[in-house]
Amino acid sequence: MEIVLIGSGSVATHLGLAFKSKGVIIKQVFSRNPANAENLARKLGTTFIDDISDLYMDADIYIYALKDSALKTILRKMNTVPRGIHVHTAGSVPMSDFEGFTAQFGVFYPLQTFSIKKEIDFSNVPVCLEASNAETQIALVNLAKLLTDKIYIINSEQRKQLHLAAVFACNFTNYMYDIAAQILEDSDIKFEIIEPLIAETADKIKTLNPYDAQTGPAVRFDETTIDRHLHMLKGNSNFKKVYDLLSKSIYLRHKKQ
Amino acid sequence: MEIVLIGSGSVATHLGLAFKSKGVIIKQVFSRNPANAENLARKLGTTFIDDISDLYMDADIYIYALKDSALKTILRKMNTVPRGIHVHTAGSVPMSDFEGFTAQFGVFYPLQTFSIKKEIDFSNVPVCLEASNAETQIALVNLAKLLTDKIYIINSEQRKQLHLAAVFACNFTNYMYDIAAQILEDSDIKFEIIEPLIAETADKIKTLNPYDAQTGPAVRFDETTIDRHLHMLKGNSNFKKVYDLLSKSIYLRHKKQ
Repeated sequence: MEIVLIGSGSVATHLGLAFKSKGVIIKQVFSRNPANAENLARKLGTTFIDDISDLYMDADIYIYALKDSALKTILRKMNTVPRGIHVHTAGSVPMSDFEGFTAQFGVFYPLQTFSIKKEIDFSNVPVCLEASNAETQIALVNLAKLLTDKIYIINSEQRKQLHLAAVFACNFTNYMYDIAAQILEDSDIKFEIIEPLIAETADKIKTLNPYDAQTGPAVRFDETTIDRHLHMLKGNSNFKKVYDLLSKSIYLRHKKQ
Repeated sequence: MEIVLIGSGSVATHLGLAFKSKGVIIKQVFSRNPANAENLARKLGTTFIDDISDLYMDADIYIYALKDSALKTILRKMNTVPRGIHVHTAGSVPMSDFEGFTAQFGVFYPLQTFSIKKEIDFSNVPVCLEASNAETQIALVNLAKLLTDKIYIINSEQRKQLHLAAVFACNFTNYMYDIAAQILEDSDIKFEIIEPLIAETADKIKTLNPYDAQTGPAVRFDETTIDRHLHMLKGNSNFKKVYDLLSKSIYLRHKKQ
């Protein structure tokens, strides 16, 4: 099995390292930025290109781990699109972006947050697959099985919703941690004190659904505490807006039902 | 060591069970609601009262795990405030609420989210202590040590900030999970698919600070995706408002620095 990686960001890096550790041959890495391409190629013990016309033509699978807008641009730049299966890794890009360029294509979307500096255990990463035909789907399932048992067949419309849900569950959640960190820093309190709370909040939803797991002043309709907190935030209009909107939202969510 | 628990909610329940498992004698449980009092007393193998004038007078420590507004009310109702140490468990209530009622008092604030249905490993719960004098502080440290090594001396002003930070890191975070769950449910996607993402997002901040751990369309200034997501949320004005405000906040946070 030979793979070519188009892209050199954190998804390309983590996928490349994971496949390499399973004995898959990473034949080539492409990035428009030669330094990034070289850097990832070194990590993966392979070659790199920064000109798409030098693309290796005989790989089994081409994985496009690019910014959302870059996929069609790069496909258009290819003189000949290689045979083999072409997949992108993006939550929000429809599979149909490959149509007209190649026949065997699909999506290989690992639903996880990737940072270059943080290792990932891929056996715990759900991979969402979509394929242009049954044969391609089988090939992608076999590819994904090398990394994880958590394999889901998800169509483009569902994947868009999944990506949107992930923005709330991951990106916005992390921003809540960031606000907490700033509040603690301003009071000379170490961030570590709040880490067990963050861990337990995440752990809880394995056994309770988030609706039932909700705690805090807003769900208790504890206006005294809410007003006190809003007053404490008067020096930061942005944090105050976030606190106010989320408290009202939680209140309405739990009042209605 | 004899303890009396004033209150029968989730904090009282988890603390009571944790102390009992360490051999501390829970002498009595009080709640205004006799059914709740009886229920917790049964779990702890002890007696209950629903009239504060029946309070056991010879305990070493009285733990008030009550709604924020109830502490002074209950203290005022006591004909005689017992000797012994009096502590409350609340993040937002100043220690000074005990002043004038008794001499030995303090705060025993476990920084964790407690739900009746979810067991807690107390060895991983930070306990924030504050005491009216040195002798009381030593007694409270010894009490906390029965449960955990994570003991912090935190004054009332810091504790208020800590509680505010916890609302963001826990309550609002859980609400982000809840919104994600609702989006997934509307698209017939199982919530389990997003659980590894939630776990990794929480795990990440053990090695990266939340600022550096931030990912997603807002921090990439990816307006195309943000606009697409806002469009997808047009049927839910509240989710749309949350998405918009948090994306703008993340954008400003990362643009500035």
